[in-house]
Amino acid sequence: MNKITLIGGGLSGSLMAVYLAKRGFEVNVYERRPDMRSNRISAGRSINLALSVRGLRALEKVGLDKEILKEAIPMYGRTLHPVEGELAYQPYGKEGQAIYSVSRGLLNIQLLELADEYPNIHLHFDHKCVDVNLETASATFVNAQGVEVQVEGDRIIGTDGAFAATRGRMQISDRFNYSQSYLNHGYKELLIPPGANGQHLMHKESLHIWPRGHYMMIALPNPPGDFTCTLFFPFEGEESFASLQTEEQVEKFFKKRFPDAVPLMPTLLEDYFSNPTSSLVTVKCYPWVKDDKLALMGDAAHAIVPFFGQGMNCAFEDCVVMDECIEKHGNDWGAAFAEYQDLRKVNADAIADLAVQNFVEMRDRVGDRQFLHMKEVEHELCEMYPESYMSQYEMVTFSNIPYADALAMGSVNETILNRIIRDKMDLNNEILIKSLIDEEKKRAHGG
Amino acid sequence: MNKITLIGGGLSGSLMAVYLAKRGFEVNVYERRPDMRSNRISAGRSINLALSVRGLRALEKVGLDKEILKEAIPMYGRTLHPVEGELAYQPYGKEGQAIYSVSRGLLNIQLLELADEYPNIHLHFDHKCVDVNLETASATFVNAQGVEVQVEGDRIIGTDGAFAATRGRMQISDRFNYSQSYLNHGYKELLIPPGANGQHLMHKESLHIWPRGHYMMIALPNPPGDFTCTLFFPFEGEESFASLQTEEQVEKFFKKRFPDAVPLMPTLLEDYFSNPTSSLVTVKCYPWVKDDKLALMGDAAHAIVPFFGQGMNCAFEDCVVMDECIEKHGNDWGAAFAEYQDLRKVNADAIADLAVQNFVEMRDRVGDRQFLHMKEVEHELCEMYPESYMSQYEMVTFSNIPYADALAMGSVNETILNRIIRDKMDLNNEILIKSLIDEEKKRAHGG
Repeated sequence: MNKITLIGGGLSGSLMAVYLAKRGFEVNVYERRPDMRSNRISAGRSINLALSVRGLRALEKVGLDKEILKEAIPMYGRTLHPVEGELAYQPYGKEGQAIYSVSRGLLNIQLLELADEYPNIHLHFDHKCVDVNLETASATFVNAQGVEVQVEGDRIIGTDGAFAATRGRMQISDRFNYSQSYLNHGYKELLIPPGANGQHLMHKESLHIWPRGHYMMIALPNPPGDFTCTLFFPFEGEESFASLQTEEQVEKFFKKRFPDAVPLMPTLLEDYFSNPTSSLVTVKCYPWVKDDKLALMGDAAHAIVPFFGQGMNCAFEDCVVMDECIEKHGNDWGAAFAEYQDLRKVNADAIADLAVQNFVEMRDRVGDRQFLHMKEVEHELCEMYPESYMSQYEMVTFSNIPYADALAMGSVNETILNRIIRDKMDLNNEILIKSLIDEEKKRAHGG
Repeated sequence: MNKITLIGGGLSGSLMAVYLAKRGFEVNVYERRPDMRSNRISAGRSINLALSVRGLRALEKVGLDKEILKEAIPMYGRTLHPVEGELAYQPYGKEGQAIYSVSRGLLNIQLLELADEYPNIHLHFDHKCVDVNLETASATFVNAQGVEVQVEGDRIIGTDGAFAATRGRMQISDRFNYSQSYLNHGYKELLIPPGANGQHLMHKESLHIWPRGHYMMIALPNPPGDFTCTLFFPFEGEESFASLQTEEQVEKFFKKRFPDAVPLMPTLLEDYFSNPTSSLVTVKCYPWVKDDKLALMGDAAHAIVPFFGQGMNCAFEDCVVMDECIEKHGNDWGAAFAEYQDLRKVNADAIADLAVQNFVEMRDRVGDRQFLHMKEVEHELCEMYPESYMSQYEMVTFSNIPYADALAMGSVNETILNRIIRDKMDLNNEILIKSLIDEEKKRAHGG
């Protein structure tokens, strides 16, 4: 019998529980927080996430994709808000391709409800993990009454997030590589409420960005008609969280830098001072697994910054890969865990780096005319030569191509675009364009 | 009144205590281990360290350098032991320049004895730090009786080593950057005992290296006539700790790869199986200080691998710089801690990278003929143009030039040497050589 202790009942924990239950294993999920289903957060204040192809594929395998998409808003591109002048629009992919704004809370509830349908999944809330034993796969929790609970099992899967207790235990074992690296930027959530008739006050089906060089604000649409705004802003410096201390300073700054947004944000000052300022961390570690006893998944193994919208998608892809490894190796869990680690570590590192790169692109380069021209050329190239050329954004967001390959292709694509622009190539000249693409791809592969 | 709680009574803790005591502060030193003075480790089994200019300068300021050098053995260069053929010798610096093999235990005892002479230093052994408060600078220890002891003070200095409890506390505060990165190599100590008359059985005044590409063994002389050998070896792989499991395997391997050393190692098999295999870690973190309440120093702030022999020297230099910052800023400890951090962080990062680089050089490149030729040319250059050219090794080991500058100059030096060798320049052509050196230095400074 295989009894699995799953530590953390967030997005990846509840999804992985379902994958394991479908294979017939006995799964106990221990979650630190209370059951969020009996304590729904109001939809208007929910944090939203961008669900894309990798995440949808993982949900499809447990039959949840259609239900999730019903409550999601497709975003077909970026709407850029300059300080002055016209809005600009960049489609994310080809006609009809979108990423989906979903509520984190609602998605988690739907996953927990699905998990609860399986008789071999047992959910335990208000259980905080305080220790795990890497030799015996037993785990110790403290429950809501402050009582210590010892749980035995055959193996542990740690899905307890960026500050995982399971990873903390790995970290004090010998030869565990670990890094946590913070950006100098933090973030704060703000709100654009619905209009008088519940309508969205900006274009509904896009992700809005106010790129400002060293910082930016973004907004994602929610079904009730509101947008969740997030200000990504330096902690210290001339324009920073530290420099905005009074209501006057905040109001003056927003009016000057986000003039089109301020009229839509009636609770700006209240939100600014009551919502927390949070930090942004990248966590990398290795190894992720201990023999056949423990495996780390999702943020517990690889927390990334949110600028490619891939944190959840990457964690869900972990679940798909882990499930495939378990299927492949049958009862040899050591081999399954090892292959899962081999397949995922390099890709998790890649998306971590891509996410930091995309922060620079979103806050800085999307406001640059030369860069916008390059993006236009790229968009045409994608539409005209879909079998030959794929943008990095498409690879990451609209395909299941390994993140590491997408990372490597970034500079190849940049060279192709630079050559087209420099030599003023005619995009309609199919022979010329295709041979250029082939040539650069071959060069990248050392051919 | 300034009451300072110093956590960790190792090399940097006991030295820093003396620096602080000389300025009149009340210093309480808490050390996890028992008092090593009443439990002397036998000299023959001591671990040795290479003391060089930076460490000597720090000891000189507390009047301990001459006493330490009495018990030290100067090493004027490297003696290289190939598998077959002649030994080779590379001087470390100019005529008379040496690094000094000292016993870690003896040096620590001498520092503790010096500290004990100050009435304002109070040493507390068998006190394990379990918590520190970053707001109040109070600290909690557990003593040998298992009793919790709460200690109040004005500020805390953490010198508690690579696995510091003080840094552990910093690590759980927000926005603390941290990385621990292990080499795939571990190390094991072995022994070459004295000859029948207590004499050294190899050249006494050098550091011996058996470079073998993917791994190496080194040996440092001790005053009683023995050498402490250290095998740096991969944990896993064809030739690795994992592959040497039986006495036969160990004996066969050593006879094949270290044929000249084996006859000098009568206790090889015993030592190999009874001594531990230890791992090698680089720890980087930031920030090192919390306001005027806490500062990390030495390995607690920056643990490095031992291949440049600078771990202790760097930690001692921390003490010199901290002392200078305290002098400069008077009672403004926040400013003193901040300047200490500014001055040292960049240099600690540099020596960490240099130490990893030197591992590759020692195990691999010193066995390479082309590299040896380059080292010979460099040695001549140093001797002939001491005002113009300094090797990276000299900068790190025989000067107080900031490590970051030494790191940056490495590639400049390499270019100079490559050009001299490629163009077969005559080293006696002073005008040519000096203008080459000037040119490359200017280029490096963007001039």
